[in-house]
Amino acid sequence: MKHFFLAIFSFLVIGSTAAQKIKTDDQDVEMLRKIYDEALARGESYQMLEFLTSQIGARLAGSPGAAAAVDWSKETMENLAFDKVFLQEVMVPHWVRGKKEIGRITQSKMGTVEVNVVALGNSVGSGPQGVAGQVVEVKSFEELAKLGEAGVKGKIVFFNRPMDPTFIDTFASYGGAGNQRGAGPSEAAKYGAVGAIVRSLTTSHDDVPHTGSTNYALNIPKIPAVAISTNDADLLSKLLTNDAVNFYFETHAQMLEDKLSHNVIGELKGSTNASEYIVVGGHLDSWDLAEGAHDDGTGCVQSIEVLRILKAIGYQPKRTLRAVMFMNEENGLRGGRKYAELAAANKEKHVAAIESDRGGFKPVGFTFTASDNQVERIKGWAPLFEPYQVYKFDTGGGGADISPLAPQGVPLIGFYPDPQRYFDYHHTAIDTFDKVNQRELELGAATMAALTYLIDKYGL
Amino acid sequence: MKHFFLAIFSFLVIGSTAAQKIKTDDQDVEMLRKIYDEALARGESYQMLEFLTSQIGARLAGSPGAAAAVDWSKETMENLAFDKVFLQEVMVPHWVRGKKEIGRITQSKMGTVEVNVVALGNSVGSGPQGVAGQVVEVKSFEELAKLGEAGVKGKIVFFNRPMDPTFIDTFASYGGAGNQRGAGPSEAAKYGAVGAIVRSLTTSHDDVPHTGSTNYALNIPKIPAVAISTNDADLLSKLLTNDAVNFYFETHAQMLEDKLSHNVIGELKGSTNASEYIVVGGHLDSWDLAEGAHDDGTGCVQSIEVLRILKAIGYQPKRTLRAVMFMNEENGLRGGRKYAELAAANKEKHVAAIESDRGGFKPVGFTFTASDNQVERIKGWAPLFEPYQVYKFDTGGGGADISPLAPQGVPLIGFYPDPQRYFDYHHTAIDTFDKVNQRELELGAATMAALTYLIDKYGL
Repeated sequence: MKHFFLAIFSFLVIGSTAAQKIKTDDQDVEMLRKIYDEALARGESYQMLEFLTSQIGARLAGSPGAAAAVDWSKETMENLAFDKVFLQEVMVPHWVRGKKEIGRITQSKMGTVEVNVVALGNSVGSGPQGVAGQVVEVKSFEELAKLGEAGVKGKIVFFNRPMDPTFIDTFASYGGAGNQRGAGPSEAAKYGAVGAIVRSLTTSHDDVPHTGSTNYALNIPKIPAVAISTNDADLLSKLLTNDAVNFYFETHAQMLEDKLSHNVIGELKGSTNASEYIVVGGHLDSWDLAEGAHDDGTGCVQSIEVLRILKAIGYQPKRTLRAVMFMNEENGLRGGRKYAELAAANKEKHVAAIESDRGGFKPVGFTFTASDNQVERIKGWAPLFEPYQVYKFDTGGGGADISPLAPQGVPLIGFYPDPQRYFDYHHTAIDTFDKVNQRELELGAATMAALTYLIDKYGL
Repeated sequence: MKHFFLAIFSFLVIGSTAAQKIKTDDQDVEMLRKIYDEALARGESYQMLEFLTSQIGARLAGSPGAAAAVDWSKETMENLAFDKVFLQEVMVPHWVRGKKEIGRITQSKMGTVEVNVVALGNSVGSGPQGVAGQVVEVKSFEELAKLGEAGVKGKIVFFNRPMDPTFIDTFASYGGAGNQRGAGPSEAAKYGAVGAIVRSLTTSHDDVPHTGSTNYALNIPKIPAVAISTNDADLLSKLLTNDAVNFYFETHAQMLEDKLSHNVIGELKGSTNASEYIVVGGHLDSWDLAEGAHDDGTGCVQSIEVLRILKAIGYQPKRTLRAVMFMNEENGLRGGRKYAELAAANKEKHVAAIESDRGGFKPVGFTFTASDNQVERIKGWAPLFEPYQVYKFDTGGGGADISPLAPQGVPLIGFYPDPQRYFDYHHTAIDTFDKVNQRELELGAATMAALTYLIDKYGL
């Protein structure tokens, strides 16, 4: 009982605080309507996304696709007649998958079974000799540690803890399972494993393997590592019940020399406070398996669209608004780091940074890494968003690319679209244009533009 | 300024009123968590829907599919060991499309163009002789009236007012364009038109025609009527610019004799107030063009799932809970009317009726046709739903099938999922199982179950 009344009490207090802080007016109500009208009736994010995904396609850092995406974003923002469009040079890791992987259960009660495996990003390749070994299934690093060298040496460790489906926020489910992919291979190698297999990070039950970066620990042998689909993970686990399973896989990945790439930045110049910046951004790179539609083509086109919308409705920003296409979020974050480094070096004052990197789904709201005052100020604007069915204004992080701005005290804001479908497609070959709904995408861009407008007008 | 502060003021008042009315407790917080866990971790709605759509498929009232769906729902609820499962007999209209329609621009500046047309539901067929005539485009009935008999007689009227894309609530967009399909053919016939073509009711730009009922007015000749896709509507409109276009179409629809069909009802019996009923329902019939996944397979399986979830978590309802599969929502509403008629005849006290007929998308909330007190009471429960990202509790209608209960003073509640994608599929051949996301569907069932639980516990 206590628990619940406490919640209600906080709710009212927040309501009152917010009411005191609100400085919005009828003009804001009208501006938001104009922003949403422009996005829904004359939006260009969908056609931009179609080009970026269907024409350019996969664009892992260092790849020809990434270079084409840099050119395309620059040209697109120039054609939209933004005040300034420029590139920031950044050296990026250049990981290549090589030819299609081979995966096979070589011995089990079902005999031999071919399995669709994908190498984890940044992982070392096995080369043509492959990796073979008995499979040991674990659900946690604790379980792995208990097995120790005696149970693991010379074997292939299979990390099979599913994402918890009961979280509403699937990013929390992802967070709860993600260390298997990120740290699993090195944890397994500590005990002498020769390879690692990771259950795909999704709550979906299907045949699609999800890639994503693994991070090798220092001074531990780097072992080849692959992801398998959730259906295959379930099958493998079943075969392991009271029985031995041997697995063979072959990956051909290589980490090449770092390569020159770019962040791409478009600006609308501020009229009165031009040296203050508001960033809206997404990351231009994607995994190599598909078009990177929701991750993060949508964030890029929405960021461009924010500036296009504000320009189209004739809004003159006070501060300088920047659409930033960050490079190399997926396997290095070099673009985000470079942006923050240059911002510090150039003594640029950033009022806020907004990132869209949770897919192009229906907007639910925003999450923040910011001061209590800043969060309260934004919450005070919430009633303006209610007619657009945007309700959630809460702490909970900004975004990977903008996170290096944190030491400069920049409030970080993460666009929060509905998270139910994101991990169906995340890091897979099926993260394609057809998975994006036009209205959901446009509403996201409008919602980001609305917040950008309010921050520009009132500061933060 | 005034405008906006007024809104804030109402917000706070509602907050306070709600706080006074709230009688919820920690047990409710736990129950909701149990309900959502059951749906997300062990939900059965998705597999039920797969059978209903992929195995049974289209199920227009009077069709073999509809009869199979009746049998399937009955068996399904019996297998779930609900306390009682029974059928209500209802005579339904029996409209059949007949063989595939033909549509053709026979004369235009582009020459001859084949056009994919679908007969409107309940429309008369042209028969093999077809309908031919010059096309007259109108955007409104006012425009049509101005043209009058002189401009319309012997011609085919083309209703081409698009759905307004700027509404966030696409049902409002639908409402704003829907009279063209519902009343357009009879309006055109008033002035001597020989046929009607209606732009499909969707904001999507694609090649998919949307069917749906037309309602012929009394004492006006019934003329054949078809829908064309939005892309074809745009093409036709373009061809009509400064030029004449002739069109030919052939439809083979017939209204046969009424046929016996059924509503299907499953019950969990109330422990203390068994003679009070809470209905959760959807409609079992669908259009004939596809599987009727979002319209309204999802509503049916969610309604069954509400009872399954509450039973699975061991909740003993006070009132009797009914999952109702209504028959013939699409082209007659006979099932809804029959249900209300029998409820009145049997003097059944209905505490509330909840309908899910807006698709199986991510839940946003509920809309109500209820007294102010009832709406306030439900709004007081809103904080319980916030952890599940369910925010909207508002007036705005219940649902077609439950609407005949209104004269009995039953509060009507419409489940409100996110409406952005619904009209992409509505009444089309692409309203198929693959368009439904498992988590979104499950969350909808859980949200309906949560509200059912609260109404059962606290009354309304």
